[in-house]
Amino acid sequence: MHPVEFIEKKRDGGTHGAAELREWIEAYVAGEVPDYQMAAWLMAVYFQGMSPEETAGLTLAMAYSGEVLDLSSLGKTVDKHSSGGVGDKTTLVVAPILAAAGLVVAKMSGRGLAHTGGTIDKLESIPGWRAELSDEEFMRQAREVGLVIAGQSKNLAPADGKMYALRDVTGTVPSIPLIASSIMSKKLAAGARIITLDVKVGRGAFMKNVDDARRLAELMVGIGRHAGRDVRAVLSQMDQPLGRAVGNAIEVREAIATLNGEGPRDLEELSLALAEEALEAAGIEKERAAAVWRSGAALDRLRAFIEAQGGDGRVVEEPERLELAPDVFELRASEDGVVAALDAYRVGMATLRLGGGRERKNAPIDHGVGVYLLKKIGEPVRAGEVLARVHHRGGRGLEEALELLGSAYELAETATPPPLLLDVVA
Amino acid sequence: MHPVEFIEKKRDGGTHGAAELREWIEAYVAGEVPDYQMAAWLMAVYFQGMSPEETAGLTLAMAYSGEVLDLSSLGKTVDKHSSGGVGDKTTLVVAPILAAAGLVVAKMSGRGLAHTGGTIDKLESIPGWRAELSDEEFMRQAREVGLVIAGQSKNLAPADGKMYALRDVTGTVPSIPLIASSIMSKKLAAGARIITLDVKVGRGAFMKNVDDARRLAELMVGIGRHAGRDVRAVLSQMDQPLGRAVGNAIEVREAIATLNGEGPRDLEELSLALAEEALEAAGIEKERAAAVWRSGAALDRLRAFIEAQGGDGRVVEEPERLELAPDVFELRASEDGVVAALDAYRVGMATLRLGGGRERKNAPIDHGVGVYLLKKIGEPVRAGEVLARVHHRGGRGLEEALELLGSAYELAETATPPPLLLDVVA
Repeated sequence: MHPVEFIEKKRDGGTHGAAELREWIEAYVAGEVPDYQMAAWLMAVYFQGMSPEETAGLTLAMAYSGEVLDLSSLGKTVDKHSSGGVGDKTTLVVAPILAAAGLVVAKMSGRGLAHTGGTIDKLESIPGWRAELSDEEFMRQAREVGLVIAGQSKNLAPADGKMYALRDVTGTVPSIPLIASSIMSKKLAAGARIITLDVKVGRGAFMKNVDDARRLAELMVGIGRHAGRDVRAVLSQMDQPLGRAVGNAIEVREAIATLNGEGPRDLEELSLALAEEALEAAGIEKERAAAVWRSGAALDRLRAFIEAQGGDGRVVEEPERLELAPDVFELRASEDGVVAALDAYRVGMATLRLGGGRERKNAPIDHGVGVYLLKKIGEPVRAGEVLARVHHRGGRGLEEALELLGSAYELAETATPPPLLLDVVA
Repeated sequence: MHPVEFIEKKRDGGTHGAAELREWIEAYVAGEVPDYQMAAWLMAVYFQGMSPEETAGLTLAMAYSGEVLDLSSLGKTVDKHSSGGVGDKTTLVVAPILAAAGLVVAKMSGRGLAHTGGTIDKLESIPGWRAELSDEEFMRQAREVGLVIAGQSKNLAPADGKMYALRDVTGTVPSIPLIASSIMSKKLAAGARIITLDVKVGRGAFMKNVDDARRLAELMVGIGRHAGRDVRAVLSQMDQPLGRAVGNAIEVREAIATLNGEGPRDLEELSLALAEEALEAAGIEKERAAAVWRSGAALDRLRAFIEAQGGDGRVVEEPERLELAPDVFELRASEDGVVAALDAYRVGMATLRLGGGRERKNAPIDHGVGVYLLKKIGEPVRAGEVLARVHHRGGRGLEEALELLGSAYELAETATPPPLLLDVVA
């Protein structure tokens, strides 16, 4: 391994082989390749790209840079991943459905950063629920409940953690092969046979247009095939937030309502699509998804999962146990019209300003604050009517949040909601 | 200064302003911007380039990252720089000519690296000569002798030293704006008003083709204008070595012979061209160059310079005091023909293998070894005739050197020497 020659190869548009990629990643994790050489190489990748085969080679090298979970004793294991959005609580709906339909959902999940929320943060708004599980606890719960969600282990794909931190400070985040390898290395190391991806497109997502999102999805599906996994991706709209709730406790409430058949239409539609893809991949008839949803079996599974991880299962029947911040501000429309745009990024940033997200890693968050969107794209509104309810804590960040929310809404004379499901890549 | 935004700006093809470049370089030298961010930015510059104005801004920021010499009390000061070649001893010829013609040559010079030699290394083959001078010694000698050459001070353009070391290990050396700013930052900090550049083109040079060399020259001339200096560049061929001697002591011998009117034609031609450019820039009639050369005034000035820096001035009359390694191998032609190619890079590498250069910084070198080329391009040769004399020390590196030298020569039925002077940029 001659680091300079390796960097020059990519700089000059060459293609790396799987063996040298493995050597490169191993040397980086071992500290033999310093950050400045990795940074130069990442920037060269930004400009020169990587072929699908190269990306697969890189991903496998990253996946095998640490521990790789062996879930083979668990049967049909499934993992679900979202590329990150605003108001995205689909995991809380889809995972119980899949578990109730006979799959084993054994999943590691991340925390939120910047304008996007994280599933672990949302679940931590449930009193008592904890994300830290030992390996034995993780496997036992997967076997007994069929549903376990733990915090991302530092031992899984450590190369990705180190590389992502470096990309974040060197302007090398927005590279499709690097995004694909980052996501898929963690998913491969986490061991599930079936991986269902929700690739978000639009203002509130990392992928701003559908072509980039499709390229990313195809790359990830190909990496999965290369590694012997069944990967399917649903491309979904993220111009406006998903559902009506954005925050932590408030999103868990909405997920429970959705499993009760009382959720917003878009969240239902996307959750069903994702669940059906996973079932198809597992060879289970996709109608099972709607069946366990309607029967209440999925909701029961959610309760069992919460209790298995130390949480108060009564939240499923009594969602008011998920505490919201007591102060509420109502944002009202200043004119008549139809909502033509509702910028997901700004709504996410508004929640961040209220204290519901984190600007830097490991910062504490306020689970009770958030936003409830009474009006979404295509819905008519009269002057003075409430557009959104803002749950804040004593006014913290309220002014900024209101400015962001106010500018997130655009009214027009007429508007139709954009299609939610854009494509499926399998 | 937001480092990530700064990197992203260049990554996305933006143009940096002078103020932010100054901030960036200051923060880097202060250790506030880490190597990995600089490495990512350097790679982005490799791909996106820099405008002439940006390059000038970067160069000034680097020049002012440390001490800047004030030579204004010395009158018409001149510096001469070569972009690095094989057998390039022109400084030893041109500097005494300029001093004798009334200019003040006050110059910092580097040591050799890889296949190229350095003026300081060559001068150190003169018994007693030393490169380390205090600031007072430097200024006094400039005033009294009109010619001083000292080793590169670490206090001049420290940003360049730090950045060059990083470029060397991150695959970001071959970028024309970065090469231009590296050379010119040191020259600006060194304080001379007139700067004469010898930009080498060809197999033995960093610039492999004349278009790149012209771009580099134009960029450096523009940077000089921007900084209020008079910069002129001569583009010269470096496919084959300059002159016939390659090494250290052996090159000083050839420089002295050249000042005595007994040097090789190409070295004479290039030295005269460079000297005339510098004189023109100073408003002195260019015929003075040939006049002080012929009269012996230039040779006298070389002697005074050597003695002022502690060296044995008698070498000027008795060049055999410059000791050559005692062992000599004669490389002979295996067939009749005309020399069609004489690869400068390989000749430089051969000298390196003999011990006359250094593969890593600060390695000691053998001043006595070297190569004398009896045959150059366009010259006829008979089978069995000597092509080159190799001065080696007890066979060290001889086998490798002979292999390199043998493959450096190509014979054909007919060949004409390439033109030496390719262009002047002023």
